[in-house]
Amino acid sequence: VCHDITVRHAVILAGGSGTRLWPASRRARPKQLLPLAPGGGTLLEAAIRRGGAIAGPRVVVVTAASQVEATREVVPDVELIAEPVGRNTAAALGLAAATLAERDPSAVLVVLPADQHVADEPGLTAALEAALAAVERDDAIGTIGIAPTRAETGFGYLEVDQAVPGAATQVMPVRRFVEKPDRATAEAYLASGRYLWNAGMFCASAARLLGELDAQLPATGRAVRDIAAGRARADEVYPALASISIDHAVMERAARVVTVPAAVGWDDVGSWAALPALRGTDGDGNTAVGPSVIIGGTGNIAISDDDTLIAIAGVSDVVVVKAGDAILVLPRSEAQDVRKIVEALSARGLARYL
Amino acid sequence: VCHDITVRHAVILAGGSGTRLWPASRRARPKQLLPLAPGGGTLLEAAIRRGGAIAGPRVVVVTAASQVEATREVVPDVELIAEPVGRNTAAALGLAAATLAERDPSAVLVVLPADQHVADEPGLTAALEAALAAVERDDAIGTIGIAPTRAETGFGYLEVDQAVPGAATQVMPVRRFVEKPDRATAEAYLASGRYLWNAGMFCASAARLLGELDAQLPATGRAVRDIAAGRARADEVYPALASISIDHAVMERAARVVTVPAAVGWDDVGSWAALPALRGTDGDGNTAVGPSVIIGGTGNIAISDDDTLIAIAGVSDVVVVKAGDAILVLPRSEAQDVRKIVEALSARGLARYL
Repeated sequence: VCHDITVRHAVILAGGSGTRLWPASRRARPKQLLPLAPGGGTLLEAAIRRGGAIAGPRVVVVTAASQVEATREVVPDVELIAEPVGRNTAAALGLAAATLAERDPSAVLVVLPADQHVADEPGLTAALEAALAAVERDDAIGTIGIAPTRAETGFGYLEVDQAVPGAATQVMPVRRFVEKPDRATAEAYLASGRYLWNAGMFCASAARLLGELDAQLPATGRAVRDIAAGRARADEVYPALASISIDHAVMERAARVVTVPAAVGWDDVGSWAALPALRGTDGDGNTAVGPSVIIGGTGNIAISDDDTLIAIAGVSDVVVVKAGDAILVLPRSEAQDVRKIVEALSARGLARYL
Repeated sequence: VCHDITVRHAVILAGGSGTRLWPASRRARPKQLLPLAPGGGTLLEAAIRRGGAIAGPRVVVVTAASQVEATREVVPDVELIAEPVGRNTAAALGLAAATLAERDPSAVLVVLPADQHVADEPGLTAALEAALAAVERDDAIGTIGIAPTRAETGFGYLEVDQAVPGAATQVMPVRRFVEKPDRATAEAYLASGRYLWNAGMFCASAARLLGELDAQLPATGRAVRDIAAGRARADEVYPALASISIDHAVMERAARVVTVPAAVGWDDVGSWAALPALRGTDGDGNTAVGPSVIIGGTGNIAISDDDTLIAIAGVSDVVVVKAGDAILVLPRSEAQDVRKIVEALSARGLARYL
């Protein structure tokens, strides 16, 4: 592949359910469609903007059919590729790669999850450009490795061979992908300097991705090619595909995977605990979106999706979210446990609130 | 006064602002108009029912002019006496006494606050009958003294001369009225057996009440008689009256004040912390009104005034109230501190939520 004739496409993965941001994220309105970005826009729009910085107008959004309508309301002018049902990132990305390769065999993909925050967008663009150079030169798979700022146990990691240098943008081979570690392991990773957060962003040619799928997950590779070429109906073959992440299915076993370490103010907006990093805190350490009054407490996160006032007194480190017809109250340290509430709602016949 | 010719009237005092039940109680919709009673009715309707058990159809409600409209919606068939502005219970009760005395000079009043809960209504009726007998025989002022069940610091007390006997209904002289005590004093009161909670319910002839006002608070006595007789306009003279409680203005200095000790499941619905006593608790010790799911916590109070779901996880002993366009979150032990929030709202230009 000669880099002179490749055409870059940004693929925004926007199919997640976002359970951990309930009640703001619902089945038909997931977290990437929420106005959580610092300027008040949606996370999806921010991801599209980052993709456009690399790919110009060639941005597609892959989302679930159940979310197409809500997605189109937010970004009416962006091309959507709809999964008939959610089947995780290997199938979703395969469908996008096959669709784009059908129209442009030399397509190079820049894959960006839709539910993340990046403070330093020019920094990210530079890192992606470095990764793309490796992709276009060596037919590599390029990832973005976020320089960790804390011993986070909620993320996967990329291990590299030597300590990550401080400043210059640099392409490093990935030794292995590592699952979410426990606390002690995460602290050892942080101390070693040889582990990076796996941001889930990566670049590869469509041909390479499809070749990897053919090798590692052949039923999926065949199905997405058949759908893209019009030889099969998506709603008939797609639901039968394995639900597996692209990391597990391809990356962990692929050759020539590289990473570009980046310190770009990245965060996964994975739970309400991420909001202070996005929206900042007031002098008392509280974070508020929407009308609120907080007295005698610190470290609280108050989110209201309309004019409903949230009043908090004498409580600290609590998340209070009003969104639509539901209110959530839980400790900030247990923000990951929103899924327990979601499960309880299903079990108690209250699924109408999901 | 001969008891054969007296006519009993119930006067329901419904003029309070109910700040401590914000956000359910608002300036135009105070707590007595909230559906907090165990059966789902309003506290005002429950008070009217208790008054009717003594006075038949002769029940009047005294309320603030700003609350007349909302009150009439709840009890369209009950006579209302409107205070032009709130001036506390001495003026409100004087206005009612003068109005009723004008039409019925022999009127005997049974005065009941509108914002209370009484579990044993027949028991209360019996106690009020005993008090009325003393009123009609001796022209006494009869109060109801609630047998205390805890060392409550939020109530005033009545001191009597000897330990209150257990069972039989009995009329006892009141030695003195006592302000809200501190914790140690309240515990001593509880141990002594000689102190009763001042429930704010009492009986007296209209003539006696007006005579006491003439003696103790003459400007108020004169003004309410003038208003009732049509010699003065309420909106002109009433706002100038002293804002003072009937307890302070009259009871504490009056002769022949008696009490009937009563153990009738009484509670002042003074704050959200009173809700479990009214509405009961589930197996986990949580109290819910409206749709809710509470997991991993105990002692919580969740109130929703519509179909909005309240979901609580991993938090205990917290009050969460959704009412209208506001949500309140505070520790149950600080339920009295709602007024701090109300003050903060005023100070921060958010009075539209009051």
